[in-house]
Amino acid sequence: MSHQALRNMLQELNENKVYPSYVVFETMGKNQKLDVQKLNTHLLIVLEGSLHLENKNSQILQFFVPGNTIHQSPFVMNVQDSLKVMSDCESEIVLVHREFFLNFASNKIEYMEWLLEAVTENSSAFCFELMKFDLLPEKRIIYTLQTFCKKIHAHEDSGYFKLPDFITKTMLSRYGGVSRKTLDKILVDLAEQRLLIKQDDTFFVKRHFDNEKSSVSATK
Amino acid sequence: MSHQALRNMLQELNENKVYPSYVVFETMGKNQKLDVQKLNTHLLIVLEGSLHLENKNSQILQFFVPGNTIHQSPFVMNVQDSLKVMSDCESEIVLVHREFFLNFASNKIEYMEWLLEAVTENSSAFCFELMKFDLLPEKRIIYTLQTFCKKIHAHEDSGYFKLPDFITKTMLSRYGGVSRKTLDKILVDLAEQRLLIKQDDTFFVKRHFDNEKSSVSATK
Repeated sequence: MSHQALRNMLQELNENKVYPSYVVFETMGKNQKLDVQKLNTHLLIVLEGSLHLENKNSQILQFFVPGNTIHQSPFVMNVQDSLKVMSDCESEIVLVHREFFLNFASNKIEYMEWLLEAVTENSSAFCFELMKFDLLPEKRIIYTLQTFCKKIHAHEDSGYFKLPDFITKTMLSRYGGVSRKTLDKILVDLAEQRLLIKQDDTFFVKRHFDNEKSSVSATK
Repeated sequence: MSHQALRNMLQELNENKVYPSYVVFETMGKNQKLDVQKLNTHLLIVLEGSLHLENKNSQILQFFVPGNTIHQSPFVMNVQDSLKVMSDCESEIVLVHREFFLNFASNKIEYMEWLLEAVTENSSAFCFELMKFDLLPEKRIIYTLQTFCKKIHAHEDSGYFKLPDFITKTMLSRYGGVSRKTLDKILVDLAEQRLLIKQDDTFFVKRHFDNEKSSVSATK
């Protein structure tokens, strides 16, 4: 579903909602924590910006970017005290009452298919996250960055993706599963190989087509 | 959806299939590798037994037990060379043509909801798998076993789950993300704490209610 079609769907849901609370558009500031209680009754859809899921140790488990949804409540999984959802930058989200959505979608199969696809994407993304721990730290970092850039359709120029500003070194170490010290070494190595370029305060990541197929299968 | 309702749904799909290949019931022998090409066009549903997803390094990423589905093709994720689906014991599976299922389910919203729920369960399960790497190896092993037993509704007696025979030590080390040597030490520790009991060749895992809420949130 295109971004415009997604917005149209949400507009339609908004116009047909039974109670005002059934469809709520919200803006989250940078580094704001989501009240996960909201996910008990509502599914969350990201319209603009970026959110991430992190655990108690601040390890980043997943990013949610425009078009992504958070469908499952941490309460259902009994991990409400272990998981946090944080915004990475100013972000626009929509909370849609789950039962209302499912009822509405029962007559709009394409909406149901959208949700199915969005949840499948989450499942695949978590699977990718699990697989990346198989890679050596250096490959893991570049793979993490490439995957993230593809996910957000990052701006590409001359074979390099431009990393969003909010991906700081600290964040990268928390997402890549390496210490800050290790990360610094890795970044130097990646720069030497021209896989990662820093210009002013912006990082550029090589799109690296050769790596695409082999990166996940690389062994220790 | 109950197991009987799932079987009824599959029966209905089978009776209404356009081509014989649209719904195929198969039996897999123990330790048999699934031809993942089949997942390109079909979704897989486990009716009996157990399958697991493993990567090139034989790390087990996920188990699929009765009622579970594998909806996504590794080809879509471009990881067909990195992932294997293996049966753990003699297992009964059904392959349902994906497009046929979605078309059929467009008039049977409860089937669509079943698939959505099954995919959501996969997504949550992968998230759990990611979270468990936060735990110390000992906690990780017991948590892994408890979660698995709950998932398969393992037989419970006097507060202990009976582990299926196919969960061998080798398998446990591959699923728990610890070496065989470390695992042996852990198993001794767990036995001393009566969290794990071995009787003849069968392992019993303490259900350990106290641990349920805190296990995931335990820090290193």
